[in-house]
Amino acid sequence: MPRYKLVIEYVGSLYHGWQIQPDCKTIAGEIQKAIKKYCSQDAELYGSGRTDAGVHAFKQVAHFDLQGVHDIFRIKEAVNFYLQNKEIIILDCQQVNDDFHARFSAKFRSYKYFVLNRYANPIIDANRVWHIKHKIDLDLIDKAIKEIKGKHDFSSFRAAECQSKSPIKEITELSYIVSNDKIVFYIKARSFLHHMVRNIVGSLIDLGVGKMTYEKFISGFQACDRSKMGVTAPACGLFFNQVDY
Amino acid sequence: MPRYKLVIEYVGSLYHGWQIQPDCKTIAGEIQKAIKKYCSQDAELYGSGRTDAGVHAFKQVAHFDLQGVHDIFRIKEAVNFYLQNKEIIILDCQQVNDDFHARFSAKFRSYKYFVLNRYANPIIDANRVWHIKHKIDLDLIDKAIKEIKGKHDFSSFRAAECQSKSPIKEITELSYIVSNDKIVFYIKARSFLHHMVRNIVGSLIDLGVGKMTYEKFISGFQACDRSKMGVTAPACGLFFNQVDY
Repeated sequence: MPRYKLVIEYVGSLYHGWQIQPDCKTIAGEIQKAIKKYCSQDAELYGSGRTDAGVHAFKQVAHFDLQGVHDIFRIKEAVNFYLQNKEIIILDCQQVNDDFHARFSAKFRSYKYFVLNRYANPIIDANRVWHIKHKIDLDLIDKAIKEIKGKHDFSSFRAAECQSKSPIKEITELSYIVSNDKIVFYIKARSFLHHMVRNIVGSLIDLGVGKMTYEKFISGFQACDRSKMGVTAPACGLFFNQVDY
Repeated sequence: MPRYKLVIEYVGSLYHGWQIQPDCKTIAGEIQKAIKKYCSQDAELYGSGRTDAGVHAFKQVAHFDLQGVHDIFRIKEAVNFYLQNKEIIILDCQQVNDDFHARFSAKFRSYKYFVLNRYANPIIDANRVWHIKHKIDLDLIDKAIKEIKGKHDFSSFRAAECQSKSPIKEITELSYIVSNDKIVFYIKARSFLHHMVRNIVGSLIDLGVGKMTYEKFISGFQACDRSKMGVTAPACGLFFNQVDY
């Protein structure tokens, strides 16, 4: 059966995450329903990775197989027609080889995390940022980032429910830019542990606002003990950025 | 009476613009109502400039007078309490001298205009961008910007309803940045004609997508004839940026 690759943008606020679950509205579930409306086939959608409830995506990638002959432009337009008003859109649809797998062929995944650092609540950026009122010490965050980057045991940033075989991951990029009152973190790795990005950003911000000393941050990280690190940053600030194949 | 200066962020989508009008929900109207709920006074709010229905603001400025003694932090917190869920927030409240006037004391105003240039409809940026599907020739826009910048008769970018005494204005800054599939225009002047920013951006984009030749753009601009220029860019992409005093 021909295989198709989708690039998808979505706002996650209204959904119980990417992955299909019974009796829940999910991103993958809505896309599968739209594919079925287009061609009456029960295609199974494989994402490059799951996103949690409330997490957004600029360029999520997924694949699925369809019987018969289909024009890729028509697939995209039809699926988008059925996704109207759902805050999900197919940016691109391509036919790919049978050996392409959205999850297993991925070489790198990247995320962006948006922090709004000011006293007043977010208005223009509501549901798109983590709102931090306190002053953030970026020098401390710079120091911590240097320690986190690279290949480590990331158990200290791993959710209890994580199903990954190993806690060893390699963060190839971790940086941020400051733009007015926003801090935008960028993080890239081949793969991540469950909640790893939100736990890293949460701990960096806990460090930056003084809820955790630098010494505790480093010793907690090295102890590979989740309970010694900071909060899990809220889902609303997290954007799945893109996948490299 | 003590005078207070407010800095205000808002999403304009739900409102009939800044200026109070009978039987319409407006930004200034909602803030005046919130001030009245706080202190039972009918304060009149003077904005640095009006924004059209659907236009947003990062840092609009307004002033008003109140009888009695008021703590500026308390004004801000109380007004924000009454503005909850209205997509309007007071970022700052300061007491100012009697001779401060949000409109007449302004030295410069700036706007940002966001264009999303891609095939797919906006999702994450819905109601925050003008969506342009066609390829935009930025070299042509660069050339046109050089001609528009500076002091000119801007009648060709002036709405019919404009009440300004003179069509002569001076654009001190006009530039843009490209970030992925977004183009963000930045424009600054002491003051603007009615619809001037939206008409400039609309004409630049008409030029960029080939709806208008460069020659027609320049001759229309020099002819000071609104009917010879491009469309009025939609309100949803426009953000009042800030005021310098």
